[in-house]
Amino acid sequence: MGGYFGGLMAHAGAPVTMIGRKPFVDAVQNAGLILDTLHFRGSVPVGASSDLSAVRGADLVLFCVKTTDNAATARALAPFLAPRATVVSLQNGVDNVAQIRAAANIDALPAVVYVAASAQQPGHVKHVGRGDLVVGPECDRTKQLAEIFIRANIPCRISDNIEGELWTKLIWNCALNAVSALGQVKYGRIAENADARKMVETVVDEVLAVARAAHIILPGLEDPKAAMAGAMKIATQMAEALSSTAQDMNRGRRTEIDSLNGYVSRRGAELGVSTPVNHTLFTLVKLIEGG
Amino acid sequence: MGGYFGGLMAHAGAPVTMIGRKPFVDAVQNAGLILDTLHFRGSVPVGASSDLSAVRGADLVLFCVKTTDNAATARALAPFLAPRATVVSLQNGVDNVAQIRAAANIDALPAVVYVAASAQQPGHVKHVGRGDLVVGPECDRTKQLAEIFIRANIPCRISDNIEGELWTKLIWNCALNAVSALGQVKYGRIAENADARKMVETVVDEVLAVARAAHIILPGLEDPKAAMAGAMKIATQMAEALSSTAQDMNRGRRTEIDSLNGYVSRRGAELGVSTPVNHTLFTLVKLIEGG
Repeated sequence: MGGYFGGLMAHAGAPVTMIGRKPFVDAVQNAGLILDTLHFRGSVPVGASSDLSAVRGADLVLFCVKTTDNAATARALAPFLAPRATVVSLQNGVDNVAQIRAAANIDALPAVVYVAASAQQPGHVKHVGRGDLVVGPECDRTKQLAEIFIRANIPCRISDNIEGELWTKLIWNCALNAVSALGQVKYGRIAENADARKMVETVVDEVLAVARAAHIILPGLEDPKAAMAGAMKIATQMAEALSSTAQDMNRGRRTEIDSLNGYVSRRGAELGVSTPVNHTLFTLVKLIEGG
Repeated sequence: MGGYFGGLMAHAGAPVTMIGRKPFVDAVQNAGLILDTLHFRGSVPVGASSDLSAVRGADLVLFCVKTTDNAATARALAPFLAPRATVVSLQNGVDNVAQIRAAANIDALPAVVYVAASAQQPGHVKHVGRGDLVVGPECDRTKQLAEIFIRANIPCRISDNIEGELWTKLIWNCALNAVSALGQVKYGRIAENADARKMVETVVDEVLAVARAAHIILPGLEDPKAAMAGAMKIATQMAEALSSTAQDMNRGRRTEIDSLNGYVSRRGAELGVSTPVNHTLFTLVKLIEGG
């Protein structure tokens, strides 16, 4: 995610430094960042460092780590952050801003990210769908931020209900990520299988019930059928996609399940809303991770 | 299962013919059936054939195929079955007798099987726990049957509530089999993980609700806590076991999930009882099977 959005900004002429692991930094320093997007293919020269102190002096910081690394990264980043810096969380889940604030007192802005991209090898970004952002609420900082993204050809919308936008993305993630991982199937198989659709519908209904109890307004999803239809639309549009949870699991890496079905399960328990299927998906992924 | 119980009967002196696939038959004809049980280790000479016609003239037929093969096997067996033959279903699930009757008009007796055994290679049975049966209801046929088993050192109890006994075993199977398979864990990990226990409790509660709606009396499980405690007792006693569903899945074979969580889900739907977690476990296993 960082490679894709940072790469587009560098391609548009912004002075960008990528912070990543050593194999990524070595690859980028050798051959530039390879962007293979739906609109552009080529190498983009860009600064790269594996040292978080490289964030010094940055006006804008795109916070794109896995949610499992939120606290550790925020704490390591804080000492180098300029007071005027804008930190934007480009992550899955609805509580990253709260986690980053709790860990290091950094006041980040949330962004909802819709992009299908993957790093096939370090420094090589393959983009296969969408690539747009939602930020909010409307204020000087978010207006400026949206302008910067748009100048780099990244569609960015401002919402006055950013919480609802984050939860909307959470619904799609809860509906599809763990099912794709545990069932070992691409999104298209979920959409075409009646039992899988029935299961996803229960997952979606549970997330909607938790959102309602948390007083979240979901833009355009007032009708529960609209939420299920939205999940199936994404599954059909991205029929060949395997979820990021599946990709993490297949590589033996920790997943973001704590921020997805795990979050819904925990929040549901706090609010007295029953979420047996979200809890089941969460638990099965955790059992595999621990195995 | 057939190797274990048939092997014990042959070891006790009964004239036994094993019907199985060619590698099994070849192994048994070469070296006898290798029984490695908690009480006995050695080779047992026994007849073996890969041809179902070998059932001709048998007084007692132990029906031990996977439940997915019920209909096909019953139909293939029927023409060779002596009219006086007693067929006993030694299988997981509660509807095997009905399936065998529907497929081939064979009137089988149900047995509930408690045994931990596996075939490490064809013709080699490794037994690691229990090995007892429940048959019923009490009548001349079941009394005679129990006597035959007991003579072969196979503990066998007669129950007047065999339906309740079958459902009791179904609860254990629904609680542990798919979770072990999908979570890729042995039973012990399920018992020691709080989230897994919570998930299993929901599974058990759903099966109990379906049983209640189906007017099944579960012996000794009138208290829902007793059912969960029973599942956890089995998980602890068999801490090192991986479920048969997990073993099938890991070998890329069809599982018996249709007869376990799948059965509960279908029966629940018929009876108007909601079973979201059983349906989820069933659906995830089916997605993997189809993948």
